[in-house]
Amino acid sequence: MDSWTEFYQGCRVLITGGLGFLGSNLAIRLVEMGADVTILDGLLEGMGGNWFNIQPIRDRVEVFVAPLSDEKTAEAASKNQDLIFNIAMQPSHLISMERPLYDIETNVVSQVRFLESLRRVNPRARVVYVGSRAQFGRVDRLPISEETPLNPRDVYAVSKQAVEWYHLQYQTICGLRVTSLRLGNTYGPRHQMHHAQYGVQNYLIRLAMEDQEIVVYGDGRQWRELIYIDDTVDALLRLGAMDRCVGEIYCIGAKERVRFVELVQAIIRTCGSGRYRHEPWPKDREAIEVGDVITDDTKLRTHTGWSPTVSLEEGLRRTVAFYQEHRGHYW
Amino acid sequence: MDSWTEFYQGCRVLITGGLGFLGSNLAIRLVEMGADVTILDGLLEGMGGNWFNIQPIRDRVEVFVAPLSDEKTAEAASKNQDLIFNIAMQPSHLISMERPLYDIETNVVSQVRFLESLRRVNPRARVVYVGSRAQFGRVDRLPISEETPLNPRDVYAVSKQAVEWYHLQYQTICGLRVTSLRLGNTYGPRHQMHHAQYGVQNYLIRLAMEDQEIVVYGDGRQWRELIYIDDTVDALLRLGAMDRCVGEIYCIGAKERVRFVELVQAIIRTCGSGRYRHEPWPKDREAIEVGDVITDDTKLRTHTGWSPTVSLEEGLRRTVAFYQEHRGHYW
Repeated sequence: MDSWTEFYQGCRVLITGGLGFLGSNLAIRLVEMGADVTILDGLLEGMGGNWFNIQPIRDRVEVFVAPLSDEKTAEAASKNQDLIFNIAMQPSHLISMERPLYDIETNVVSQVRFLESLRRVNPRARVVYVGSRAQFGRVDRLPISEETPLNPRDVYAVSKQAVEWYHLQYQTICGLRVTSLRLGNTYGPRHQMHHAQYGVQNYLIRLAMEDQEIVVYGDGRQWRELIYIDDTVDALLRLGAMDRCVGEIYCIGAKERVRFVELVQAIIRTCGSGRYRHEPWPKDREAIEVGDVITDDTKLRTHTGWSPTVSLEEGLRRTVAFYQEHRGHYW
Repeated sequence: MDSWTEFYQGCRVLITGGLGFLGSNLAIRLVEMGADVTILDGLLEGMGGNWFNIQPIRDRVEVFVAPLSDEKTAEAASKNQDLIFNIAMQPSHLISMERPLYDIETNVVSQVRFLESLRRVNPRARVVYVGSRAQFGRVDRLPISEETPLNPRDVYAVSKQAVEWYHLQYQTICGLRVTSLRLGNTYGPRHQMHHAQYGVQNYLIRLAMEDQEIVVYGDGRQWRELIYIDDTVDALLRLGAMDRCVGEIYCIGAKERVRFVELVQAIIRTCGSGRYRHEPWPKDREAIEVGDVITDDTKLRTHTGWSPTVSLEEGLRRTVAFYQEHRGHYW
């Protein structure tokens, strides 16, 4: 056993957004490692919160159903926690551009209310904030690293960057010990499969499983990095356990790089069904499209010993198997 | 007459925060140039809004007293305007760290409500947003330019950066034509003189005029750039008039650079009263102190032909003369 994994035995951990894709996979892994897990989730409409996500650990975690902005509940859930994974968010780029105020209320104001709750009941808590690769937006130079200038292309990306910074200000305000991981495209079991408003690579799997046609905008040759959920969870766990990561920001890459159209082909191959065609970019999507994604995650690897272990082929195989078995809970 | 000044003859201009320091000086200049000026100001408590500020043009401008977040009033004030100077803000770094939610409600949510109002009634308006040098925070390398990585050190600075970016997203959302000027320390007539919560260099003038003792934290040898209000107004006017500035961000420097303690000495010299002593940095101030300020404003100069014209000595002389004459309206 690596020494960092011992940190989680008996560790009191709160996960915001813990009924969603990332949060629930993290919760399951934490329970396996012997952590004492609490979940705070608002089950907001259209987001990924789903009780079935925590079915394997349902009786071994405490769950508060309330939005981050509900101060009383947030305080009750946050008190005495050793570590908080702050994952709750409105994750849709498109919604953020249609309804900026909704995005800002959900992703900014609620988050700062939550930080104020922490300031009152757990001001020196260890917090891992889940940011987004979108904070970089469209970049001039690849690969992307923590040094890449920020050029957010939509309201969601601005909000995520602002809240990462607000978190860091709480180190000054009350001693909060913050780490941020700027997530890339993550896929795997327990993602919502109702719509393509966010996490589109997951929805493509549904389309292929249903033998539908997938639309590829433009030539589809933009580079993408698909990170299998278990690799993302592993990164989050390491960041939460290691003191040297306090006050730091990290990027995360994938085991392999793939062109978007090749990803679509791999999904169709794995499912054994589905097909695709090309279409010109719609204006609203093109405006917020960020181009190639290639990440230099040397800092994450060096600081934590993390490296991705699941190939795209293997990850897709596991994902499709999960949804074939549990389709009724996600369709 | 330079050709850009003709732009303002008969130009319909809205100034948010137009009863404050920057807004009122801008309004006076705009009226002189023949513009049709409307002011929207919430007269928020503790901020710089002051009816006396627009006394020279009181009967030549329309004034709406309402916060930016008041949609009905904001729409009435914004409709049919050719140009909007969006200046309204909560300007205190210290307040933002004590009351982050207040800062975010005032500087972020209200601003986005205002942008939504524009989206409804004037979606392709020309907007000059007034940002802050604080968005850069503590920098690794001097001078500061538009390329300098962002490293905000307080909640105020995060909010100002987020709202600059939100403005730029509205180019995508509805075609808003935005320019941002990241202001440095500006001084001159019409600044609030009640407290040192923001615009401290102005408050120092009051202390010296009252023959009080000014406290200089540390050795006071950090570099500062003091920009006289007329030079700032000139920059804003150029940015608002020139099409090439749409979608662009600008920094602004001063005519001279001065060490903070030398600034204090110059103020005392100009006033003919006051004195100073050194003290160690208080913890809350040190945490948000950004160090030396040296700006490369080549972009602003090249794009607009702007250059600062008022020396520190002359600017201080004019400022002290103004407050000696109008002390009753500011003390």
